[in-house]
Order: sequence, then structure tokens, then C-alpha cells
Amino acid sequence: MKGIFITFEGPDGAGKTTQLNLLADYLRKAGHRVLSTREPGGTPLAEEIRGLLLSPWVEEIHGLTEVFLYAASRVQHVREKILPALAEGKIVLCDRFTDSTLAYQGYGRGIELDFLRKLNYLATGGLKPALTLLLDLPPEEGLCRGKKGKEGTARDRLELQDLDFHRRVREGFLELARQEPERIRVIDARQPVEKVFAEVLAYIAPWL
Amino acid sequence: MKGIFITFEGPDGAGKTTQLNLLADYLRKAGHRVLSTREPGGTPLAEEIRGLLLSPWVEEIHGLTEVFLYAASRVQHVREKILPALAEGKIVLCDRFTDSTLAYQGYGRGIELDFLRKLNYLATGGLKPALTLLLDLPPEEGLCRGKKGKEGTARDRLELQDLDFHRRVREGFLELARQEPERIRVIDARQPVEKVFAEVLAYIAPWL
Repeated sequence: MKGIFITFEGPDGAGKTTQLNLLADYLRKAGHRVLSTREPGGTPLAEEIRGLLLSPWVEEIHGLTEVFLYAASRVQHVREKILPALAEGKIVLCDRFTDSTLAYQGYGRGIELDFLRKLNYLATGGLKPALTLLLDLPPEEGLCRGKKGKEGTARDRLELQDLDFHRRVREGFLELARQEPERIRVIDARQPVEKVFAEVLAYIAPWL
Repeated sequence: MKGIFITFEGPDGAGKTTQLNLLADYLRKAGHRVLSTREPGGTPLAEEIRGLLLSPWVEEIHGLTEVFLYAASRVQHVREKILPALAEGKIVLCDRFTDSTLAYQGYGRGIELDFLRKLNYLATGGLKPALTLLLDLPPEEGLCRGKKGKEGTARDRLELQDLDFHRRVREGFLELARQEPERIRVIDARQPVEKVFAEVLAYIAPWL
């Protein structure tokens, strides 16, 4: 495996997509080959599954249903897109990955963490990011930013979950970072975009 | 739980849907309240997932992707449709259920059976059929019947798998029946429809 696999984690509204795009541009200008991708999604089937997860439904969507849909999307994404790009020596930048499953479905919804870790392991075939950049933000700010950015558009289902849930998710992410401090680097996402990006670059530097 | 949960299993082309419909009519005429349903599917989201599973895709669909999509569909189906109907005292007739996961993804595709059993347990919350009618058919005949029945229409992806796969699936179903002979009743599906239905009625009788 010649490439480098880097993931961005954190709540909606923390600026993951902005930072990922800045980094992709920076790396391409420096002559690297880059694949920018996201979860759930990344292949035609995985994007369809993403659509199901973000749509409003009349029926209640159970926590385990989300878990299995994310896992299905991940199997396709890893095998059809991420692994081939890494084999070609590309730097793969991915917006959300397995840590989101643990934070949202595990810490957030209370599904057994050991089961989720086994599921992640099977879904990824054991692939782990070399580096994970966790853009940390208190949930109140993330929800406000999301609202401001998409004024006048329908809020998606996941954004409408309650504040307590988002607090548990944030604590979950921070706990994961404490468990794997070498892999998961925490960045304060309340800083201006350029300051956040400077920290992103500092963490990336040893890998280039 | 006042109702009775009965599933039909076996390959495509064995006549599961025909027998399920005959039984539903028979039970309704006898004054029972009946819910006829099927897997994957049974709720709006679960039917969307069914569509993904049966569609042709440019990308390869991995065995684990199927497993997780079936599991997601089952979580919704059990909680939103089957359990409420059983609580109302209905007889629930379901075309395919957890045994199909073990036969197709386990015996057929070689995914670890213990993992699939745990997944089934979580997806169903522990719900098991009271009675399972296994319509057994040699795979050569099932594939021919399926073709004849749908002449001129596109064959779906699952039907195009190779014969060896279908042989392993058949052996898997028969092995499951040997493990749970009280629950899973094997019926020779090569018999005429009315003879198969007579056996179905004989197995149902003790439950009414």
C-alpha cells in the first residue's frame, strides 16, 4: 500500500469539507495525486445509500438500521474506491469514516461499541486511517453554523436530532482521540479557517 | 405476543409466493386476520433497500454489502410491521426471513455463520418464526421455472449467479432444517401446486 489514508471527523458545521478541499488543493499544487471522497457515499451504490440515510421517512429509522446502511456503504467505498486509490499511491482524503460510526451510533445512540468495532473491522477489511483530523466544536455552534450556511433550505433529518445527542457524539469523538492520540489529532474548529488550516498542515507535514 | 409468525423459505422459482397467497386466502376465509409480507422489503425504506439489492450495478456488489443491506431492511420490517401485527393477534406470513441470510450469504457466499447469526439476532431483536415452510427444489429446476415465468423480462442480478452457488444455498437450507426439524418443515416443491399446498395446510394445522 503506497498511498496515505487521511480522514476528517467532527460534527456537521465544523468545516470538514472546507478544510478537506483546501488540503486537496494544497497537495495537488505540491505535485501529489489526491482522491477526495466522503462517507456515506463514494460509489454509485454507496451514494444511493447516502440518499436513503439523509431522506425524511414516515417510518421511524432505527439506530441499527443506520448502522447497517453505513456499513453497507463502507464495504463498497473501501473496496471499489479507497483501496484501489491507495494501491496507486494516491493520498486519499475522506470526509467521515469509521470514527463517525463509533461517535454517532455508539456514543450517540448507545449501540454496543464492541459490536460496532467488529462491524467496522469487517466493513473496512481492517483498513485504518494513517491520520485523522478531528475538527472539534461545541454542538451549539455546529448546529448554528449549519443553519446559517443553508438558510432557506430544508434541514436534513440528522441535523434535527436533539442537542443532548450531539453532546454525547462530541464527547465520543474526544474519547476516541484520547484512546488513539497518535492517530486522531484534535483541532479547535472555532478558530478562523486559515488558523485551522495551518494546524491541518502541521499535522500532515510528517506524512509528506 | 398473540399472533403467529410463519415464514416461507427456498429458492426463487419454488413457488413460495403462490403458496403464501393460497395460505393467506385460506386463513382469511377461515376468519383469521392475516398480514402477508416479504423480505427484503415490507416498509417504504425497506422496499427502497430491496430495489438497491435487485438492481444491476456497474460496481461489484460485495457479499458483506448484501448482508448489511438485508439486515437494515430487516430491522425496519420487524419493528415497524411484523411485531405490531403479531401484537394485534394477526397471523404473519413472510416470504423469506433470517434463514435466507444464513443460506445465501452464509452457506452460499461463505460469510461466517456465527457472525450472521449474531447479526440476525440483533436485526430481529430475537424474533424467530414459529414455523418455517422450506420449499425445496434442485437448483436446475428453480432457475428454469424462474426463466419460464418471466420470459422476455430482464433477469435480476441474483438470478444470474452460478449454479454452484445455488447448490450450496440449497444444501444450506437443508442443513438448517436438520438443525431445527421442529421449526423448519421441508416440502418437495417439484410436486403439483395443490399437493404442495396440502402439505402446507398439514403443517399449519397444529398452530390454528
